[in-house]
Amino acid sequence: MVVPGAALALERHPNLKFVMFGRRERVEPLLAQHPDLAARTELVHTDTVVEMEDKPSQAVRRGKTSSMWRAVDAVKNGQAEFVVSAGNTGALMAMAKLVLRTMPGIERPAIAAQWPTVKRPSIVLDLGANVGTSARELCDFAVLGAAMARAILQVERPTVALLNIGVEEIKGVEEVKQAHAWLKDADLPMDYRGFIEGDQIGQGTVDVVVVEGFAGNIALKTAEGTAKQVATYIREALTSSIFTKLGALISQGGLRRLKDRMDPRRFNGGVFLGLNGIAIKSHGGTDAVGFASAIDVGYDIVESDILRRLSADLAALHGKLDDTALAGGTK
Amino acid sequence: MVVPGAALALERHPNLKFVMFGRRERVEPLLAQHPDLAARTELVHTDTVVEMEDKPSQAVRRGKTSSMWRAVDAVKNGQAEFVVSAGNTGALMAMAKLVLRTMPGIERPAIAAQWPTVKRPSIVLDLGANVGTSARELCDFAVLGAAMARAILQVERPTVALLNIGVEEIKGVEEVKQAHAWLKDADLPMDYRGFIEGDQIGQGTVDVVVVEGFAGNIALKTAEGTAKQVATYIREALTSSIFTKLGALISQGGLRRLKDRMDPRRFNGGVFLGLNGIAIKSHGGTDAVGFASAIDVGYDIVESDILRRLSADLAALHGKLDDTALAGGTK
Repeated sequence: MVVPGAALALERHPNLKFVMFGRRERVEPLLAQHPDLAARTELVHTDTVVEMEDKPSQAVRRGKTSSMWRAVDAVKNGQAEFVVSAGNTGALMAMAKLVLRTMPGIERPAIAAQWPTVKRPSIVLDLGANVGTSARELCDFAVLGAAMARAILQVERPTVALLNIGVEEIKGVEEVKQAHAWLKDADLPMDYRGFIEGDQIGQGTVDVVVVEGFAGNIALKTAEGTAKQVATYIREALTSSIFTKLGALISQGGLRRLKDRMDPRRFNGGVFLGLNGIAIKSHGGTDAVGFASAIDVGYDIVESDILRRLSADLAALHGKLDDTALAGGTK
Repeated sequence: MVVPGAALALERHPNLKFVMFGRRERVEPLLAQHPDLAARTELVHTDTVVEMEDKPSQAVRRGKTSSMWRAVDAVKNGQAEFVVSAGNTGALMAMAKLVLRTMPGIERPAIAAQWPTVKRPSIVLDLGANVGTSARELCDFAVLGAAMARAILQVERPTVALLNIGVEEIKGVEEVKQAHAWLKDADLPMDYRGFIEGDQIGQGTVDVVVVEGFAGNIALKTAEGTAKQVATYIREALTSSIFTKLGALISQGGLRRLKDRMDPRRFNGGVFLGLNGIAIKSHGGTDAVGFASAIDVGYDIVESDILRRLSADLAALHGKLDDTALAGGTK
């Protein structure tokens, strides 16, 4: 999926150049099928491979010669502007943290991705990089997500909300309430809208949805599962009799459009935000179309040059939070 | 919705009897439209009403004369076997806890509900009664959910899983991991299956899904939102041209079945589990069909007499957890 995915992305963005890390004997024959891509690709042979079953610590111990490590390192040493991998998520996160390091004032990176909605896509984070998140980190995520929204959605002042249970201020966990109190008054370069509930994500109510990683990952997986479940219902409903089959045949143009809108490959690509460099996790089970989407995300982020502005936005946030803390608030 | 909902439920369960608490001048004319129901209903006039906007503490302060309090109290004093309300969730929970009290060894009740899947429905809890849950409480929820599965799904040894992020034992929060370690070895009257992820809920992988309340509520709302979102896609896809409209007309039998399967009213009714009595929260925005579903849930639970057996199951669980704690584990 990686090589044909890169070929697809290159068709859309002819100024892309690739450095691929992996076994020469496996990658070379694939590249040979895509001469345009081969002409813009530097292939670096690596012997060591991070396995999907490796724990992050094992993967890191495999050392700096693995294809994954070297790909991440290419971002650090300026050889590449972003890295995309469909490999082991935990290992990629561990290496990205070790090699790229977090931005000043950021403790842990978040994973952000596009979420399809009935309007344009939204950005949702954290999708599982962290379990348990402080109020300060939720504020960081808001700033990081707003930056990604600027890059991907091309909106200068994105709308941002905290995911909570119940829209009244009295409900929810302490961290979410505290983050709300801070974001409300922080005067950041975003349109902060307060709380939303899970049913609003798919309605596209805001551009950026901020949530702690455990709940965020469960929300994402539950949404994927529900979409799959409804797709099963649709298939069963439209194949239940000769009439429904005939109707489906006549409606096929509309049904194809429905299938496109529900295609998870269009939204593939989880971005690790908060590091000094962009690392993107592609779904391991996707295909070339999905992998190309993950490359597109990296392309848009690098094109928009958000990292430069992000440092300033984060510094402004942290300055305000520190003032609040000095004034008697809590961190 | 309450009176016609009760009438619908009575058609299905002719041995039901009702006690209704509310303003006589509002309820009486509605009852007059359903003579069969009126014949099996005792109407108790109450002046005080808990408002949807009341905080739980305010609602409790309105006192023991409110319709909600008196309805809950009817369960305690044996006048009713379960209570159903479409009112203020927080107020109902506060009153249910105060009046019915938690079962021995249970600190806080959980909210459980049926979740539609591609197979039969599953039971998911906690859907938001608690934010932040200890490992011991997650074990309690497993036993409570298994009891509800026995009542609603008529399965003697339900399959149970903990909702987590990632299926490897290394991932997830401490409480979930600890609960997993305990449930694995506890030899409870259930078929404990370990961890599942959010995308498995709608596949009906297990009968009972156990999750902390913040994440559980977000999962539920996100699934509702996704179903609604996909319904919008379907509608737009099938009305996009004259061909799709014609196809949809021919397929209408299948599409009607699809609509039925996605109808949230069939799964209405959140059960407060872990109290000495059954209280059920109906969605406030449902109609008679949905309210009747919530009554059905209470009927099935009372018919199955699970509360009696549940005390014994919980005592067995707590005995085992206490032994584990004495043997050097942690609570």
